[in-house]
Amino acid sequence: MGPAVGHAKRNAGPHAVDRLAALLAEDLEAVDALIHHHMVSPVGVIPNLAAHLIDAGGKRIRPLITLAAARLCGGGGDGARKLAAAVEFIHSATLLHDDVVDVSAMRRGRKSANLIWGNSASVLVGDFLFARSFNLMVETGDIQVLDILARAASVIAEGEVMQLAAANDAETTRERYMAIVAAKTAALFAAAAKAGAVCAGRAGAEATALETYGRELGLAFQLVDDALDYGGLSQTMGKNAGDDFKEGKVTLPVVIARDAGDDSERAFWRRVMGGERSDDDFYRAQALLKRHDALAMTIEAAREHADGARRALASLPGNAYSEALAQLPDFVLERAY
Amino acid sequence: MGPAVGHAKRNAGPHAVDRLAALLAEDLEAVDALIHHHMVSPVGVIPNLAAHLIDAGGKRIRPLITLAAARLCGGGGDGARKLAAAVEFIHSATLLHDDVVDVSAMRRGRKSANLIWGNSASVLVGDFLFARSFNLMVETGDIQVLDILARAASVIAEGEVMQLAAANDAETTRERYMAIVAAKTAALFAAAAKAGAVCAGRAGAEATALETYGRELGLAFQLVDDALDYGGLSQTMGKNAGDDFKEGKVTLPVVIARDAGDDSERAFWRRVMGGERSDDDFYRAQALLKRHDALAMTIEAAREHADGARRALASLPGNAYSEALAQLPDFVLERAY
Repeated sequence: MGPAVGHAKRNAGPHAVDRLAALLAEDLEAVDALIHHHMVSPVGVIPNLAAHLIDAGGKRIRPLITLAAARLCGGGGDGARKLAAAVEFIHSATLLHDDVVDVSAMRRGRKSANLIWGNSASVLVGDFLFARSFNLMVETGDIQVLDILARAASVIAEGEVMQLAAANDAETTRERYMAIVAAKTAALFAAAAKAGAVCAGRAGAEATALETYGRELGLAFQLVDDALDYGGLSQTMGKNAGDDFKEGKVTLPVVIARDAGDDSERAFWRRVMGGERSDDDFYRAQALLKRHDALAMTIEAAREHADGARRALASLPGNAYSEALAQLPDFVLERAY
Repeated sequence: MGPAVGHAKRNAGPHAVDRLAALLAEDLEAVDALIHHHMVSPVGVIPNLAAHLIDAGGKRIRPLITLAAARLCGGGGDGARKLAAAVEFIHSATLLHDDVVDVSAMRRGRKSANLIWGNSASVLVGDFLFARSFNLMVETGDIQVLDILARAASVIAEGEVMQLAAANDAETTRERYMAIVAAKTAALFAAAAKAGAVCAGRAGAEATALETYGRELGLAFQLVDDALDYGGLSQTMGKNAGDDFKEGKVTLPVVIARDAGDDSERAFWRRVMGGERSDDDFYRAQALLKRHDALAMTIEAAREHADGARRALASLPGNAYSEALAQLPDFVLERAY
């Protein structure tokens, strides 16, 4: 399924996230301590499996957004840190269950947890992390924030089920696909940002602006990921590239190429997305995406959402945190190359 | 794996639960409406799969305990009903994930959801129901109650992982097994009862007494279930009987027979619980349980916990609700015959 060459930009610790992490170094350290404290369990499999995923070097982009949103609004401190840890736990639980659903073999450059500990352990430890995320939120004592994240959790699950139902459905429309992305990916980015503002006591316009920022950034993030799954603009195959194709996920690049294709191309997409796929089909798919400029158009769509994220920040106070958040959309787009 | 004869007492709608349901008919109807309202999703698989499980005629014993606890304490109304629905959602999510873990084929007399919709859908719809349980709790606006149920959710997941880790471990001790039962089953009964008291504004002695009641009742409930899995005292095989044996779950009847057995018997248990099992082995297992009176001793242990549940009610106000709750332990024990 394509050469498994590491995608340099993807692994090198990109500038904008690093800058945000440096700006929030103290907060982030506290969040990591909270995460490890709440992973503890006398049941050994739990911390072992959870650490395998959580310590594998994720970028912590979602908790960073929560922390930055809180600081931007003049808040921060213990509550925001607990929320940020809760956001990372929700994300981690989702990854564990995703890998079971997708029968993944790799995650963050390591063997996936389901491959090592089995599907059952991944399901149950995901449940544990999900429950712990609510323990952390309860510790903040902030019911408004619980509301935001509990709603996001429902929407994420709906998005995952929508994606499952759409798998191997070659006729998936662009509209439907974007609804999946909004639910499965953007909802948590949006909630992470909004919750940061709300826990800083800015439940009004600031929270709404940050929610929009998070949603738009999340949409851009997922679309870039979708392009990377076919090699991105540099056609360099990253570590999990080809997975969407293998799993029959009709992502935006496929939607664009399919809708622009002639009858024989549409028949090809119908066949390969419908379930009959060989390794050679992946190369034909890549060629068709190139013919119709589908990866560039996907990145263009991502750029529009990245712009939307930047615009959403305009109404917010200018400070080190809003400036750092304003650079994240660029980071997201840079990953495409 | 033994004749699949229905266990009459198990299906006939036992008296004490019916009485409780009649006493709380209005509440229960409202809870069912809440459950159905919160199962709604534009993603069709979700309500279909959820309804398959939730409408299959579960006894609603956990939400009934929440409702009765609230009424007993002079509370009730909207908050208690939402909590009761949340409790049922947590339970339902657990059942969906359990069936994936255990590769179950049947649940509540129907084909299990994982068999019809697949494991992935069961995992994700379980996640959805779990998230919705928190949506419902947030609607009550009661952070104390959220704390109780979020903690219970963590403990349940720990119990499930403990059980998974202990499967096929023929040396599981009685102490370890009871810790699994306390976590995977009794924690939700305890939280359901305690949350009812707390939402009625009785977070002190009443909540503690009801928590103990729930825990003890849950322990009794699970031990009776364990005995039923080998035919119970009447040696009538219920609908899921034999499952624990097939799954290598070392439950209390096995612990008792193993510890009382001679060397050759212990070698048998080591072999069959360790993973090498034939259908004939099940009959030998039943014979060994009979020889050592292991099912009767398991029910005796259940009876002690049932007594503990009744004792816990002694300090509470005497009213129709405490009287109805006082009868549930008998119902739990009657299931054993």
